[in-house]
Amino acid sequence: MGATPQEAGPRFRVALAQLNVKVGDIAGNGAAILAAIERARSAAADLLVLPEMALCGYPAEDLLLRPEFARRNREAMETLAPATAGLVALVGLAHREGDELFNAAAVLCDGHWVDTVHKAYLPNYGVFDEARYFREGRRFPVFEVGGVRVGASICEDIWYAAGPPQLQALAGAELLVNLSASPYAIGKPAYRERMLGTRAGDTGAFLVYCNLVGGQDELVFDGNSLVLDPDGRVIARGASMAEDFIVLDLPIGEVFRDRLLDPRIRRARLLTPDPRLTPSLHLDMTALRSAETAPLAAAVPAPPAEPLAELWAALVLGTRDYVRKNGFRKVLLGLSGGIDSALTAAIAVDALGAEQVVGVAMPARYSSPSSLGDASDLAGLLGIQLLELPIDDVFQATLDALAPLFEGRAADVTEENLQSRIRGMSLMALSNKFQWLVLTTGNKSEYAVGYATIYGDMCGAYAVLKDVGKLRVYDLVRWRNSRSDGPRIPQHSIDRPPSAELRPDQKDADSLPPYEVLDPILEAYVEREMSREEIVALGFDPAMVDRIARLVDRSEFKRRQAAPGPKVTDRAFGRERRMPITKA
Amino acid sequence: MGATPQEAGPRFRVALAQLNVKVGDIAGNGAAILAAIERARSAAADLLVLPEMALCGYPAEDLLLRPEFARRNREAMETLAPATAGLVALVGLAHREGDELFNAAAVLCDGHWVDTVHKAYLPNYGVFDEARYFREGRRFPVFEVGGVRVGASICEDIWYAAGPPQLQALAGAELLVNLSASPYAIGKPAYRERMLGTRAGDTGAFLVYCNLVGGQDELVFDGNSLVLDPDGRVIARGASMAEDFIVLDLPIGEVFRDRLLDPRIRRARLLTPDPRLTPSLHLDMTALRSAETAPLAAAVPAPPAEPLAELWAALVLGTRDYVRKNGFRKVLLGLSGGIDSALTAAIAVDALGAEQVVGVAMPARYSSPSSLGDASDLAGLLGIQLLELPIDDVFQATLDALAPLFEGRAADVTEENLQSRIRGMSLMALSNKFQWLVLTTGNKSEYAVGYATIYGDMCGAYAVLKDVGKLRVYDLVRWRNSRSDGPRIPQHSIDRPPSAELRPDQKDADSLPPYEVLDPILEAYVEREMSREEIVALGFDPAMVDRIARLVDRSEFKRRQAAPGPKVTDRAFGRERRMPITKA
Repeated sequence: MGATPQEAGPRFRVALAQLNVKVGDIAGNGAAILAAIERARSAAADLLVLPEMALCGYPAEDLLLRPEFARRNREAMETLAPATAGLVALVGLAHREGDELFNAAAVLCDGHWVDTVHKAYLPNYGVFDEARYFREGRRFPVFEVGGVRVGASICEDIWYAAGPPQLQALAGAELLVNLSASPYAIGKPAYRERMLGTRAGDTGAFLVYCNLVGGQDELVFDGNSLVLDPDGRVIARGASMAEDFIVLDLPIGEVFRDRLLDPRIRRARLLTPDPRLTPSLHLDMTALRSAETAPLAAAVPAPPAEPLAELWAALVLGTRDYVRKNGFRKVLLGLSGGIDSALTAAIAVDALGAEQVVGVAMPARYSSPSSLGDASDLAGLLGIQLLELPIDDVFQATLDALAPLFEGRAADVTEENLQSRIRGMSLMALSNKFQWLVLTTGNKSEYAVGYATIYGDMCGAYAVLKDVGKLRVYDLVRWRNSRSDGPRIPQHSIDRPPSAELRPDQKDADSLPPYEVLDPILEAYVEREMSREEIVALGFDPAMVDRIARLVDRSEFKRRQAAPGPKVTDRAFGRERRMPITKA
Repeated sequence: MGATPQEAGPRFRVALAQLNVKVGDIAGNGAAILAAIERARSAAADLLVLPEMALCGYPAEDLLLRPEFARRNREAMETLAPATAGLVALVGLAHREGDELFNAAAVLCDGHWVDTVHKAYLPNYGVFDEARYFREGRRFPVFEVGGVRVGASICEDIWYAAGPPQLQALAGAELLVNLSASPYAIGKPAYRERMLGTRAGDTGAFLVYCNLVGGQDELVFDGNSLVLDPDGRVIARGASMAEDFIVLDLPIGEVFRDRLLDPRIRRARLLTPDPRLTPSLHLDMTALRSAETAPLAAAVPAPPAEPLAELWAALVLGTRDYVRKNGFRKVLLGLSGGIDSALTAAIAVDALGAEQVVGVAMPARYSSPSSLGDASDLAGLLGIQLLELPIDDVFQATLDALAPLFEGRAADVTEENLQSRIRGMSLMALSNKFQWLVLTTGNKSEYAVGYATIYGDMCGAYAVLKDVGKLRVYDLVRWRNSRSDGPRIPQHSIDRPPSAELRPDQKDADSLPPYEVLDPILEAYVEREMSREEIVALGFDPAMVDRIARLVDRSEFKRRQAAPGPKVTDRAFGRERRMPITKA
């Protein structure tokens, strides 16, 4: 089964292609993969690693239930294989075997599709539905390339302490490779890096983790691919929130040294006689091409991104990819003068460029005199076009039309919602006429308690702040305004008390507790699924907790009809939090 | 392990409580279960069977991820147990054991919670997400009650040819009981009845199948509980689409006779040494109370419902339960004079009563002269209130407001959508003012191709016809008009060519192929997930198929923001068909 590696070598050159692919675009993704293979070959890489399901995109959801989808995956993969002369490439795909589907990786070697690796643990929680589509895999061989033993696994499999990568190390793998599509959430890149460091340390193996990057509906894949040494130290790091291509030489001989000094994986064999330990598969690569070239200089990996910068970049990437991958170039949004629409506009400008963002001010009778000024100041700071569309005449015409039916009834939330709906309708009219995509501007706190008008301010294709609570909105604005390109959001929009301006002197604080109280209750109730009793025990007023919980529960019908928006917490509204509408 | 049953007996009296419960309403459902227990005891039943998860409702979705939810299930079940003096009751619940949740049934016996049955096969396809919540169960004992061996299983477990009920029969069960929450789809009650007949025949056991009934968001549970004899003949049938309570005596001695004459289950033991065959559990019921009473006369089961009548009843039940379980009494809907809104109104009247349904006619410049007349005729036939709300002044005011921004641009779909959105806004204003729930009236063909205005005619809380294609709309109308209470839908609404009436002389046929062509293509593409090539091979024009498929794919963003509606096919839009918005 090939030569035992010697202390000094061999050098083993790996390449990681951290791609931004598109779901279902098998031809386009295949072309990007082909380019990565060519680039890896130019760099004399011995092994190229791509993200999970790079060929068909992730998550492909019910596209996987079309029989033709697996066939198209196979056919495209067969056309890629010949490009791998002289190297090994691991390419993720949806793979049919008999009447079963696997989340799989093709092992392409020297021009041939020689084997297929399966994902064993199928995530079926949070945003994931893989048990809906795939069979739990049983095939995760260790293969040998030019004397180096490599174990490849897919995403979730490395999140288990005793999963396939551990089994592969027990079977002798010196290099563990993981193809991943791990979506971003605040704090997750650091959590993931800690976990991967521990996996490398536990197995005494080099670990190459190639993650997907890009926005896909509610998900943002953050990249942040990693290469770690057998001590768990990061020796290369992919870009955060952008495509990247990494090539580096791994001194595989260090694995044996590490296992002599930290013998845990050797000793673990004593107590883990696992029948799933698969024999090594020898790949027919007589020589490593990298050996013919000069070693690459080791680089110092860039530090991880700062949390707020990374959150900002996630929102930017999610917005850019949603807009562009859906065939739009330009977006519009209502600018109320408030902080949420200002932040949304600033993110849109960073995502698409100022010339692709149009703001619309839609004053009515209850708009404060400063609102138009704030919107105009914002447009000036961002350099975006500002349209003005007064809605009061339409509002009055609507009131007049409804008057015979509303006779004898006092004004109430009906009239407030009407203004919001006229604004939504106006944005949609501009969208229809000019083919601009509408961004909606509500934040997570509002979505949570239903402080939003369905078919009104909830109109839009993409809800940029859907998973960003109000306090975090302020954090993001302060962070962005502190950047070197100067303030982007007018100070007055930050300082003014939040208001929907749908009746005289209305303020959010009339209907809602201060956000300093509301947001922690929401985090406990929505993100931690704590009971009312548990939240009260944290020190909140019981009546307040009851009221907030009831508002959250009762506004599920609105959220069910809400636009998608980028998930950035561990529990986002949308596919991740599946609550019944009808419930006690 | 108790006495071997004799040829003549014992008689064994079973009761089925086909309940309509509410998700999350553990207190309310518990009260209904308690009433069923009392009723079963009054009838001297030996065994009472309730539907799957009767205590907490089904599907409880992410309510199951609240730690308190399992605790509340347990506490409520503990309060029910003492009510079971003198009988056995099988009550479905969400059950925590350690850190795992099970879809389970409590075995309550003579006042005590004596055992818990697990569901083994967790459905995680279609509308089901059970792998998200539950651990696959391993506990499905055969228990003995007064000499009768009973095997209880939960829903999906009986859909497998070699599932737990088969294992229980191999272990000697003479009576198989299945607690179910099986949602309706067209043709499913008959498919289910065939399957259950085969299960009874294969096992030579009596089979008691107790199904849930009622609407829950997108699902309608149809009831249709069944009791079958060891030959697979139906000997009792629960109501379709309504609560029911059945009590009957089973001549258990027939099981041995059947197994002598059709020895398949006895012979199967030879070749099926399965370690999961669990030993019998003896329940401490020294005597059957039914033995002290006179035998019940056997009844002839009512025939199954006719398919169109059942579909109608499903739409009625779904609508009634969505409205009432969400705390509304009255609904409103726009009446265009067309067939979809007419059908929706007729269903709403059957669901809620004429006095709870308000129609709103909202004529504008392109409404045909007959539209108002058709709406008025409909209101007359149904006996519902009709409001008239002309929208042309609001439309004109909106056009005027937009004119400066639209200068030099020709009228297009923008202006069509505006009318639809003004109507939606008007319905929402009435909803807000009077607390009436808005029903939306689009059919499945329109949802499929996106022939609907988001935030316009798609406004509403519940989309009654969301899963009913246009051809089926006509079938339903013809069926309803043929009932004994006379025509409900005006003939002119049926005869006029479908039109959105949003521009002069507009007809559906201008933009769409005839529904006789469109609907079969949609069925192939949406419900069968056939490829374009396969659909063309059925004989359709390739360009037409391409265009329809593209329309379906591109309108996913609208459907993602659509109201829920009752699933009545095997592949409904909503939770059942999870397509990415962003895709190639």
